[in-house]
Amino acid sequence: MKQTCEYLLTKMKNLTSEKRATTNEAILRQHSMDESHHTPSLPDVVVFPETTEEISSILAFANQENIPVVPFGAGSSLEGHSIPLHGGITLSFQRMNAILEVRPDDFLVTLQPGVTTSQLNNALKKYGLFFPVDPGADATLGGMAATNASGTTSVKYGIMRSQVLNLQVVLADGNIIQTGGLAAKSSAGYHLSSLFVGSEGTLGIFSELTLKVYGISETIIAGRAVFPSVKAATQGAIALLGSTPSLARVELVDPASIAQVNLHSETNYPEQPTLFLEFHGNEQGTNQDAHFANELLLTYGCKAIDFERDSAKRAKLWEARHHLAYAFKHGYPTKQMMLTDVCVPRSKLADAVEYAATLIAQSSLNGGVLGHVGDGNFHSIIMFNKKTKEEAQMAHSINDSIVQYALAHGGSCTGEHGIGMGKISFLEQEHHDTLHLMKMIKQQLDPKGILNPGKIFREGLKDSPTI
Amino acid sequence: MKQTCEYLLTKMKNLTSEKRATTNEAILRQHSMDESHHTPSLPDVVVFPETTEEISSILAFANQENIPVVPFGAGSSLEGHSIPLHGGITLSFQRMNAILEVRPDDFLVTLQPGVTTSQLNNALKKYGLFFPVDPGADATLGGMAATNASGTTSVKYGIMRSQVLNLQVVLADGNIIQTGGLAAKSSAGYHLSSLFVGSEGTLGIFSELTLKVYGISETIIAGRAVFPSVKAATQGAIALLGSTPSLARVELVDPASIAQVNLHSETNYPEQPTLFLEFHGNEQGTNQDAHFANELLLTYGCKAIDFERDSAKRAKLWEARHHLAYAFKHGYPTKQMMLTDVCVPRSKLADAVEYAATLIAQSSLNGGVLGHVGDGNFHSIIMFNKKTKEEAQMAHSINDSIVQYALAHGGSCTGEHGIGMGKISFLEQEHHDTLHLMKMIKQQLDPKGILNPGKIFREGLKDSPTI
Repeated sequence: MKQTCEYLLTKMKNLTSEKRATTNEAILRQHSMDESHHTPSLPDVVVFPETTEEISSILAFANQENIPVVPFGAGSSLEGHSIPLHGGITLSFQRMNAILEVRPDDFLVTLQPGVTTSQLNNALKKYGLFFPVDPGADATLGGMAATNASGTTSVKYGIMRSQVLNLQVVLADGNIIQTGGLAAKSSAGYHLSSLFVGSEGTLGIFSELTLKVYGISETIIAGRAVFPSVKAATQGAIALLGSTPSLARVELVDPASIAQVNLHSETNYPEQPTLFLEFHGNEQGTNQDAHFANELLLTYGCKAIDFERDSAKRAKLWEARHHLAYAFKHGYPTKQMMLTDVCVPRSKLADAVEYAATLIAQSSLNGGVLGHVGDGNFHSIIMFNKKTKEEAQMAHSINDSIVQYALAHGGSCTGEHGIGMGKISFLEQEHHDTLHLMKMIKQQLDPKGILNPGKIFREGLKDSPTI
Repeated sequence: MKQTCEYLLTKMKNLTSEKRATTNEAILRQHSMDESHHTPSLPDVVVFPETTEEISSILAFANQENIPVVPFGAGSSLEGHSIPLHGGITLSFQRMNAILEVRPDDFLVTLQPGVTTSQLNNALKKYGLFFPVDPGADATLGGMAATNASGTTSVKYGIMRSQVLNLQVVLADGNIIQTGGLAAKSSAGYHLSSLFVGSEGTLGIFSELTLKVYGISETIIAGRAVFPSVKAATQGAIALLGSTPSLARVELVDPASIAQVNLHSETNYPEQPTLFLEFHGNEQGTNQDAHFANELLLTYGCKAIDFERDSAKRAKLWEARHHLAYAFKHGYPTKQMMLTDVCVPRSKLADAVEYAATLIAQSSLNGGVLGHVGDGNFHSIIMFNKKTKEEAQMAHSINDSIVQYALAHGGSCTGEHGIGMGKISFLEQEHHDTLHLMKMIKQQLDPKGILNPGKIFREGLKDSPTI
């Protein structure tokens, strides 16, 4: 095996450069995991390509020799997407992080897959533009397209799939294709961009992306509203959806999570169901919406909304929501965090969130629930000790129950995190009647199964590596 | 052949009912064409299914016997989509026009494919909801999903593909699948809904759709603005895009088209490049945007915008835009109308529109140009005599040049009308590197090529019918 790895390393160095392929233990370990609770697994070699052509040569070789290839962005995926289950080559996009072109009049940007959201937004600021999709982590745009990420702003701006105008994709055999173009819309044939978005590295490797960008709003108003119950908060949020057109974020945080934030940040927020709101628009429109929201939410038992208009104060207000996962991680340093992710029809959200919160409260585990109410998408944070069999079983059992609840109510087993290695059986259940179509597409595009094997589908590599 | 048709008719009657399958000449002729300039072609039989199960039985039979199947909604397609090029069975959705469920709290509706946009919007009104996609014609929702239609409002609400949460699809072999669910978003596997939207009846027959719907805005302000040049109008529109968040429609009409409307409607609009605008939002927000638009467009040479707030007056203002195609049709009753459709990056729109307008003006044909400026999508109307070879060649040559201009500038050969039978060679050019992937998907899903043969791809039916 060691000899094989030596050969692979030499080959990768030849296809890139001496310094851009490594079997260094620390670097392999960095690329063995993501931010999920899933068990790490080492790649055989990590390569840092700089060009589409290098990726193409690497894939042509890997396809020839049946070697698995796993793309790696920021490692912030949450279902084990970037874990090289079968070893092989990990393609790290660290060095492919250039913003290639900003076209302000076309409201679009072309960039390499390793660019992160914060990097992109810093670069767009001088044009008065921004990229809205905000998955929480400072993820890479390539990874976000691969998992069809969304987050807090999709209620106004849409999900990752809606932002992608073109992908340059390297196919399993090394062929390079463009899935779209620079036009804002197209009805030219089957929409391959939408097929590749969310394919989690299993159909091809993204080497360039063209994305929509948006004008920064004249006025942004953030707000925090406290409710007597999760049901009241959720129903209030749904009422806002149809009546405040500038609503750009509406996030629910449950009392257990607020309590954890208070502990972590030494804040003193009321430990009640809380909505974090944000309105994006012109000055008068957002003011009218904020005023109306205040009136409307009174009827759902909210006493008053704390509004912030100033940029720094808005950031402070949102801290409680943004630091939530960290608050739990730091609060339970010996435990592992499981972050669940389901999406239900909005009318079922209140009950689904209460169901999840009750499951956690009735277990011996700590955790909380938070949700992108505008989409019916919510997450539970479950803290557990991975080495204690009972705790691990309990965490998985809560996750299972939440997914079953979502599926029983017309929802999806994942709103934005994707399938990865953690939700394969749930995908089989949710899309039992179309799974064969998905596998047919996979089989046609990656007949040897070298692309991120063991993700989305159980099937791994078709044959053993020949080296 | 006559015997074959008798057999087919009997079979279709058996699979549906005595009255719901016909070879009546007048009905065959109604289903032989769409609203395009493409040459009609008769189906062998027209069937009016009432249930998904009936469609399934019909497809299972047709697949067994190699008989082409063409879906037919309102017949308003513009590239020959519903023309049964190879005869066979036309499935008319006239009797599958039920709105099955409105879920106001979930902002979604489930309906049969034969429901039209006007029917849907009438039904949604009492919930304070509406469906935004407005392709001009009173098309069926099934047809709009099949062609990925969009129209005047996609600048704010998005295209048809963004509205589809679930499709019930009958596959070529009669199998029935669900592509999505009721959740507002999902990252569960490959996004088959997006693949079927825009597949023009070539991958499966839609038998049920679940679509997003939206709250009707508190305030709607329409406006008409006249400019010294197409360039000034287009640049003004692009400036509005980034600065007036409530902008929901921004349509360009060229002087030749306004002149035709004046002739047709006995109106007296200035025969200059004109923008038709609409703002959707709350009262104060739309007022601020309308005021700002007025100020901003002054700097692009617009003297003043005529605004209308009242519903009847807004409808009157939009008439000029909506009656445009009719104005040409009625103005040239002996001629055929060709409606071109390309989409370019917004920064290229002014030049592309001027290019198209000049081509028409320099030819001996009459016509005009109109555009969905917010998307960079525009249409030319070209009136020609189909029986005069020179005129037909000239019309096609203008269309060719417009498409080549779009492709040379990063655009698409179709923004919203689709490929149908009219743009196959342009699709081959635009997506030369992915055409084999599209064909691979087609081959897997419809191995015998019975579904709308000769659309999107040149390839028709694989084998002759066995009856």
